[in-house]
Amino acid sequence: MSISAISWSDGRLKLLDQTRLPREEVWLTLGDHGQVAEAIRSMRVRGAPAIGVAAAYGVALAAANSSTPERDALLAELRTAAGELASTRPTAVNLSWALERVMSAVEAMPDVEGARRVALEEAQRIHREDVQANRELGRLGAALVPDQATILTHCNTGALATAGYGTALGVVRAAVEQGKRPRVVATETRPQLQGARLTTWELAKEGIDCTLIVDSAAGALMRRGDIDLVIVGADRIAANGDTANKIGTYPLALLAREHNLPFYIAAPISTIDLSISTGDGIPIEERAPEEVTALGAAEGVSVANPAFDVTPHRLISSIVTERGIVRPPYQSNLMGLDRAVVEGGVR
Amino acid sequence: MSISAISWSDGRLKLLDQTRLPREEVWLTLGDHGQVAEAIRSMRVRGAPAIGVAAAYGVALAAANSSTPERDALLAELRTAAGELASTRPTAVNLSWALERVMSAVEAMPDVEGARRVALEEAQRIHREDVQANRELGRLGAALVPDQATILTHCNTGALATAGYGTALGVVRAAVEQGKRPRVVATETRPQLQGARLTTWELAKEGIDCTLIVDSAAGALMRRGDIDLVIVGADRIAANGDTANKIGTYPLALLAREHNLPFYIAAPISTIDLSISTGDGIPIEERAPEEVTALGAAEGVSVANPAFDVTPHRLISSIVTERGIVRPPYQSNLMGLDRAVVEGGVR
Repeated sequence: MSISAISWSDGRLKLLDQTRLPREEVWLTLGDHGQVAEAIRSMRVRGAPAIGVAAAYGVALAAANSSTPERDALLAELRTAAGELASTRPTAVNLSWALERVMSAVEAMPDVEGARRVALEEAQRIHREDVQANRELGRLGAALVPDQATILTHCNTGALATAGYGTALGVVRAAVEQGKRPRVVATETRPQLQGARLTTWELAKEGIDCTLIVDSAAGALMRRGDIDLVIVGADRIAANGDTANKIGTYPLALLAREHNLPFYIAAPISTIDLSISTGDGIPIEERAPEEVTALGAAEGVSVANPAFDVTPHRLISSIVTERGIVRPPYQSNLMGLDRAVVEGGVR
Repeated sequence: MSISAISWSDGRLKLLDQTRLPREEVWLTLGDHGQVAEAIRSMRVRGAPAIGVAAAYGVALAAANSSTPERDALLAELRTAAGELASTRPTAVNLSWALERVMSAVEAMPDVEGARRVALEEAQRIHREDVQANRELGRLGAALVPDQATILTHCNTGALATAGYGTALGVVRAAVEQGKRPRVVATETRPQLQGARLTTWELAKEGIDCTLIVDSAAGALMRRGDIDLVIVGADRIAANGDTANKIGTYPLALLAREHNLPFYIAAPISTIDLSISTGDGIPIEERAPEEVTALGAAEGVSVANPAFDVTPHRLISSIVTERGIVRPPYQSNLMGLDRAVVEGGVR
């Protein structure tokens, strides 16, 4: 059973503070949406699906904390709260997707009590569905993993990055559950070290074999034949399949192609953004210079610190979703997936 | 004028401790070859040319410290010292190249006093020649740098990595001296952070524009058109042009090809090893796991920490040496360079 880093209890949102792992396991108890926004911005909770779930609960907290008897006043307050939560991080579309779901549910209610109630219900539904989606995409994706495969992954895409189980690491977990014996090579993932701090911690808890490398060593390992396939998560997938993910993903995809290795994206359909035609339209977050300079650099040096890059769809072998494994051509196949979703009624 | 991190004075080797930069400028005074071996192993002095120079002085210290009146006994002691120095780091060929030069000079002397004297003289000659070689390859390489070019470089290849001036950074320095206005993008270079700690420090001292990035961000910058060319140093160049350099160099070369950017190696001829036919024959140093885990990782995680990778010659646009700019086919052109060297008498 994988750990969970997000829970709702006694009307409060509990988050495992991911900035303090693996040294300390500190749970935060958040009572208002401003605290949730701060936790997302400072990456106490991170991972595209996880920040979507946390933001949804942020709106639920704003609803619970509002004492207005007026439906319209409540909606105005919640729109302000959702706007604040949406502005915390620009790249992962799961954030705005989850906020829109909660706001749509709220706006559909004719009375203030109903609106207040469904804010929490919808957040809890998003939470439950994300775990289900991860389990399902993990199960489907595990078919792509040969027994004893060595899987290179980047950043953290596990239970910590989602409502539980994980996307790319969900595929690894499912492969283990199916009796396969995968080995994981985890990149440390500078500057925030999600691979070193979080992925090694998650896999150690479950006894899954894991080897840590610096980000720039992936090519050397591929050259010596130590990697069989690459699976990573995603923060936003454009209509043509171009995928924004943690900085450093694009070079890994290029290396995989050079070494004839499969390169897979694993993501729930909430990460797909058909409103953006190509990766060029995906907003890329630029984070603080101090993330890079904190380990030592000349005083006052300039820094470029894009938190994500875009992998062109032509470098992606398949995109694993809970609705199926999507292969090229992505333009039509992602649209077909979306249609299936709308017709099937994910909600 | 570029700084120098190696000097000989009062019969002692002075080294600027590079593990403590940029926070502190601490000079070490080393009085025996064992201290020099430790300084190389722990990377207080690093960079292929610099460790060659330091190791040569290590033999000079061993010669000065020996009190034997017998030539053969002195030679035996110096061979032991040279062996100890050679074993510190396996990848950079400059180390064994410099040691062989000193030992050949020593062995050519018929008497113990002469042998003792030439050990120091040869070390000082290697030191002087490295500065000259850097200045010359810098001057030649600067022709490859357009005015206002943005140059991506990896690790530290400046005055600190050599006897002075630098290889890849020597090219940048020479371009500045020629009135060009290059900008540098420096990768931080995990795990030892030579780019963040040393390259930004060197360039700041000379007022050369520098932007620091995490290693994995190079692809994102190339994709958005922010890089014009790549220049890196080398630790060993095989006869076919395959080049071992700091881990992460190979992915940068692959990215450069993908984006149609020139990818240059800058290295003195002491880095060329014609005795090794391809990069597969270059020994790659595996360093301690703690270099990777020190920033935080699960207890007991496995680590792969190769300190270098090999860039295949087909990804290299040119190799800049003090004898000229070598273009493909490298097999014949490097051999021709070597012949010119032997005939021209570098020594």
